[in-house]
Amino acid sequence: MKFELKEISIRAKQEFEMINITEQVKDTVRECGISNGIVYVITEHTTTGIAVNEALPCVEKDIMQTLDRLIPENYPYNHNHYLPSYGTIGGNTPGHLKSLLTGNHCVFPIVEGKVKLGSAADIYFCEYDGIKNRKYMIYVMGE
Amino acid sequence: MKFELKEISIRAKQEFEMINITEQVKDTVRECGISNGIVYVITEHTTTGIAVNEALPCVEKDIMQTLDRLIPENYPYNHNHYLPSYGTIGGNTPGHLKSLLTGNHCVFPIVEGKVKLGSAADIYFCEYDGIKNRKYMIYVMGE
Amino acid sequence: MKFELKEISIRAKQEFEMINITEQVKDTVRECGISNGIVYVITEHTTTGIAVNEALPCVEKDIMQTLDRLIPENYPYNHNHYLPSYGTIGGNTPGHLKSLLTGNHCVFPIVEGKVKLGSAADIYFCEYDGIKNRKYMIYVMGE
Repeated sequence: MKFELKEISIRAKQEFEMINITEQVKDTVRECGISNGIVYVITEHTTTGIAVNEALPCVEKDIMQTLDRLIPENYPYNHNHYLPSYGTIGGNTPGHLKSLLTGNHCVFPIVEGKVKLGSAADIYFCEYDGIKNRKYMIYVMGE
Repeated sequence: MKFELKEISIRAKQEFEMINITEQVKDTVRECGISNGIVYVITEHTTTGIAVNEALPCVEKDIMQTLDRLIPENYPYNHNHYLPSYGTIGGNTPGHLKSLLTGNHCVFPIVEGKVKLGSAADIYFCEYDGIKNRKYMIYVMGE
Repeated sequence: MKFELKEISIRAKQEFEMINITEQVKDTVRECGISNGIVYVITEHTTTGIAVNEALPCVEKDIMQTLDRLIPENYPYNHNHYLPSYGTIGGNTPGHLKSLLTGNHCVFPIVEGKVKLGSAADIYFCEYDGIKNRKYMIYVMGE
């Protein structure tokens, strides 16, 4: 059994952004040389998410706008106070909540060396509190 | 280590429907003849979801109605425009968003040949953009 | 390949509570003596959830309050009727819905015997319908 963890650096260009990482996941799986197994994509940050959705700019926009409608930026959140551990005021509650709703990972089978995705299913790294240097894990288990 | 992927065809009877697929998952695991391992249930479509919840018709109805309240059908979504790749107007944004909130997969251990579910926990295929021919994966890894 | 399932009992002190279970997960993985593999944390109840988020009391409060804003306690849910199988009136629809939005599990790699978490990422058992005796699974697969 082979176990391979790759940590990928990523940096959005905007405060809120859905970044399609499907090709990166496919490439990493190919390089691992595993025939059968499973691949996990897991974000390392709690104001980001991993989503599976259709790769259309209008759908990406609808996702971001709907999350913003459900979890508005301007709202008296508890986190909006001085945090000694931060040395500043907590201001990214919406990011933590969008992360909760989105989830922090996805998983797909590896069959005959290839990631078995669904129909019109792409993998997204969702930035809800940019612009920051971020990392996500691609973890492959198999034979 | 054994790896088995089964793709299951499914078709809702209504535009929005929660279909209980627990027995199908249990049967597939039984047929695989694996004693210890893990089973993943993953939908292949981005206007559908996989949920784990209690098998009560009133709870199913509440889930569908609440998602519809949070993500209304009538709303000026960006996806509502002519898409050359579709040859039609994108009209299923609510499905993409309900899919995001629900998630596209679930996972349970296999212990002594049986799926180890929780208490009153059933597995649902959630159709948010029917009526269409759909597929989901049951992927079993184990020994 | 080693497969280990541990069921952990847990009981919130309040009706709604986020309980940080990260140390329990780390300890269980350590005791398993696995070098490389994967750990799943899965709740056994459908009015609870498993979340990954930052361990700050103000963020925990924001999560609970936002879920309550999106899925209010006082609302004419379908589940609010007499259920012969319960012997009482179903009153925990908000719990079922918060569970759907949160998800019922999380997953992390095990690398060199340790759980590979993200940055400021803690694991929470979310009680949305307490106070009850609950259980969640820690399932470890690896070598």
